[in-house]
Amino acid sequence: MPVMINQLLLPELREAIESEDMTSLDSFCEILHPSAIADMLQELEDPTVYSHIFKRVQAHNRARLFEYLPDEIQDELAATLPVEDMAKLIEHMSHDERVDLVKRMDDRREAEIMPLVARAEREDIVRLSKYDESTAGSIMTTDYASVPAEINVEEAVRRLRREAPDRETIYYVFVVDADRHLTGFLELKDLIVASPWKKVSDIMREDVIRIPAEMDVEDAAAMLAQYDVLALPVVDADGKLLGIITHDDVIDVVIDAATEDAHLMGAVQPMSAGYLTTPFGETLLKRMPALVILFGAEMIASFVMQGYDKLLHTFEPLMFLVPVIIATGGNSGSQAATLVTRAVALGELDVKDWYKVALRELFQGCILGISIGVLSIVAVNLLSADENVVKVATVLVLALVAVTTCGSLVGSLLPLLFLRLGIDPAYSSGPSVASIIDVVGIGIYLSIAAAILL
Amino acid sequence: MPVMINQLLLPELREAIESEDMTSLDSFCEILHPSAIADMLQELEDPTVYSHIFKRVQAHNRARLFEYLPDEIQDELAATLPVEDMAKLIEHMSHDERVDLVKRMDDRREAEIMPLVARAEREDIVRLSKYDESTAGSIMTTDYASVPAEINVEEAVRRLRREAPDRETIYYVFVVDADRHLTGFLELKDLIVASPWKKVSDIMREDVIRIPAEMDVEDAAAMLAQYDVLALPVVDADGKLLGIITHDDVIDVVIDAATEDAHLMGAVQPMSAGYLTTPFGETLLKRMPALVILFGAEMIASFVMQGYDKLLHTFEPLMFLVPVIIATGGNSGSQAATLVTRAVALGELDVKDWYKVALRELFQGCILGISIGVLSIVAVNLLSADENVVKVATVLVLALVAVTTCGSLVGSLLPLLFLRLGIDPAYSSGPSVASIIDVVGIGIYLSIAAAILL
Repeated sequence: MPVMINQLLLPELREAIESEDMTSLDSFCEILHPSAIADMLQELEDPTVYSHIFKRVQAHNRARLFEYLPDEIQDELAATLPVEDMAKLIEHMSHDERVDLVKRMDDRREAEIMPLVARAEREDIVRLSKYDESTAGSIMTTDYASVPAEINVEEAVRRLRREAPDRETIYYVFVVDADRHLTGFLELKDLIVASPWKKVSDIMREDVIRIPAEMDVEDAAAMLAQYDVLALPVVDADGKLLGIITHDDVIDVVIDAATEDAHLMGAVQPMSAGYLTTPFGETLLKRMPALVILFGAEMIASFVMQGYDKLLHTFEPLMFLVPVIIATGGNSGSQAATLVTRAVALGELDVKDWYKVALRELFQGCILGISIGVLSIVAVNLLSADENVVKVATVLVLALVAVTTCGSLVGSLLPLLFLRLGIDPAYSSGPSVASIIDVVGIGIYLSIAAAILL
Repeated sequence: MPVMINQLLLPELREAIESEDMTSLDSFCEILHPSAIADMLQELEDPTVYSHIFKRVQAHNRARLFEYLPDEIQDELAATLPVEDMAKLIEHMSHDERVDLVKRMDDRREAEIMPLVARAEREDIVRLSKYDESTAGSIMTTDYASVPAEINVEEAVRRLRREAPDRETIYYVFVVDADRHLTGFLELKDLIVASPWKKVSDIMREDVIRIPAEMDVEDAAAMLAQYDVLALPVVDADGKLLGIITHDDVIDVVIDAATEDAHLMGAVQPMSAGYLTTPFGETLLKRMPALVILFGAEMIASFVMQGYDKLLHTFEPLMFLVPVIIATGGNSGSQAATLVTRAVALGELDVKDWYKVALRELFQGCILGISIGVLSIVAVNLLSADENVVKVATVLVLALVAVTTCGSLVGSLLPLLFLRLGIDPAYSSGPSVASIIDVVGIGIYLSIAAAILL
């Protein structure tokens, strides 16, 4: 992260806080971008100074600074700042961010603050709160610029000029009729280059891409990224404009989705906050289920081994090679699961491609297994020197080819099966694929061994 | 992906192609957004029709459509379209995208096309080509709007209006002096609301956030996302404006970085293309090194087991529990590695936090180990019923606590160690952490067993 400047200024800021040097504090808050102040507040890691510094920030910058702060510090401030200040802050925050803030407040605090918020803003918060977090509606803002179709360009520019400082983006202008049906779309630059006396309806585009409020938020994000636009309009079932989703929220959605997938693929349930900020007990609970389930799966592997009790006693090296067999199968499965899960997340693969995937992994697994198998001949010679060494090596090579192929197939097809069943493919994580291969792999290994050695 | 409309139209498009119905093809190409046409071309999966359809697209939409196509189809078209068409296309493409295209062309084709490209554009391509792919310079475009400081608002708006259709974004206007030093910044909306006779220097902001062209591309992307802006200016060492990076390229960088991390964490080297489009041999080579190294690591586990030969023979259940011990340690390690690696990627954790991480994982590992240990008492009773069952259960519980704790510690600290050494923390993947734990875990397990049972 590019925090060089902040790192340089941090000691001076600490100094100013300790010596209560208000002039310096004020100039800090004045010259720095709200995002930079937010960074420095986090670096201070001292909740007692948050509200102290926050109050020095000029009123018109407060809402922006507040939005750059992580949820924990926002909540800290929301609980400690005077209710009047909070009400004013909420009025100036962007419409999507403040809904999240109010949702996180406890009921008592919300009841204290909300009556002080202007009525129109309060109603807006209630309206936006009703959308589920997994839908496009939840990241939408009602803070968009709109004009009617029948006015002329000059009048439209005049209206936008009046509204400009308040809107989240005035670069995209949505054209609506009297009932707020979305009928067209303009970029601000279209207005700038058009003749002032032309009507909005003459220059607007009518083929506006629009998304329903119930659309999955990750799909909506993918759509905005795909069309390379700044914002997309969100409409209800009747085509009425409800709000817009904007490029900055979409970057957040993309990052959050990648984190959630990474966690699931590492056998951790998605967490509510960052690594150090998620409560210790919550992290435990997010890790426990996978560990217990996988422990149970591995116990099956133990029972399988117990079934080949005598074989393992008679041919010693077989026993020592168990970790090699199961790890190699598991690793090849993890690789395949990673490749396919990520390709599904990027929209490159779909359930219908399963046979292409299966064919590819069949050959990948085979070739990888044969290569590792050749290497293993060297290894088995180091482990054993008795008369069975050739037979044991044969078992090892065949078993490696079988488990690597099987690993690649299970690892690649399990995510697609999950997708088909409507489960997030990321649940078919490396560890869970590896456990399946451990059980299957030991079975394959010991039955090959029994066939050749007994 | 939201491709409902495309799916509906696809059969009609195929029909139109087969019956060579040019009127329908033309209306397809006219009414659909270039991104939607790009989607449908991909769905057709028929290289012979790419250039066929491409030629029906109106000239002013061609460059946009081309940019929406994946690299493979772009390259296909670049190799087959007439050189004059390619030269014209390159002139109209966005400055960053066309550099990538030309870099991918073979030298002979490049030598045919480039002389036909207008000189200014050709020089621009050469200038942009010199930046390494890992730097901000490589995703920068020179297609920005700029004005001098001394003109007035009216004149600035007039200039932008003249340039508007050509610029990638005119919403951000950069103020430069005669030597192109970046001296200020304006949003288009600032110009719209300002009095026409004011000077640009009176209303511009001077505290412009700027990034050096050599900055790591992922850091530059994080910075743009953090400041919630549409574009950031890129400058050279003297503060001269070289270009801008824009929000749409940053979303691509974020997605690519997440893919690269996911692959590394699944023990696959980053790949050049998608799952099905990466050549079979390349995928093999990206998977082989990790598999071979991890195979070698597991062989060490085999040698460790061989050292406890007699113990394993005397106490049977010990042998059967090997998969349980190593998998549980490995899974706990994968979880910790995933959590820490992702937190580092998001900028939440740094090397200096190592003691917080270690402390947290020590307790997490202990508690997880004790919980699984309690469960394992049930399991060991199922496996063995002889007089040693209590002793074996004691070994198992102690070993599970030890390997889970050790797994959590290794899994969490290895990514931080890699970060300290300047290696991408994602290399400390689930599988590699699991292999370390396999070796260490078997050592711990069997030495505990030797201490208690012998």
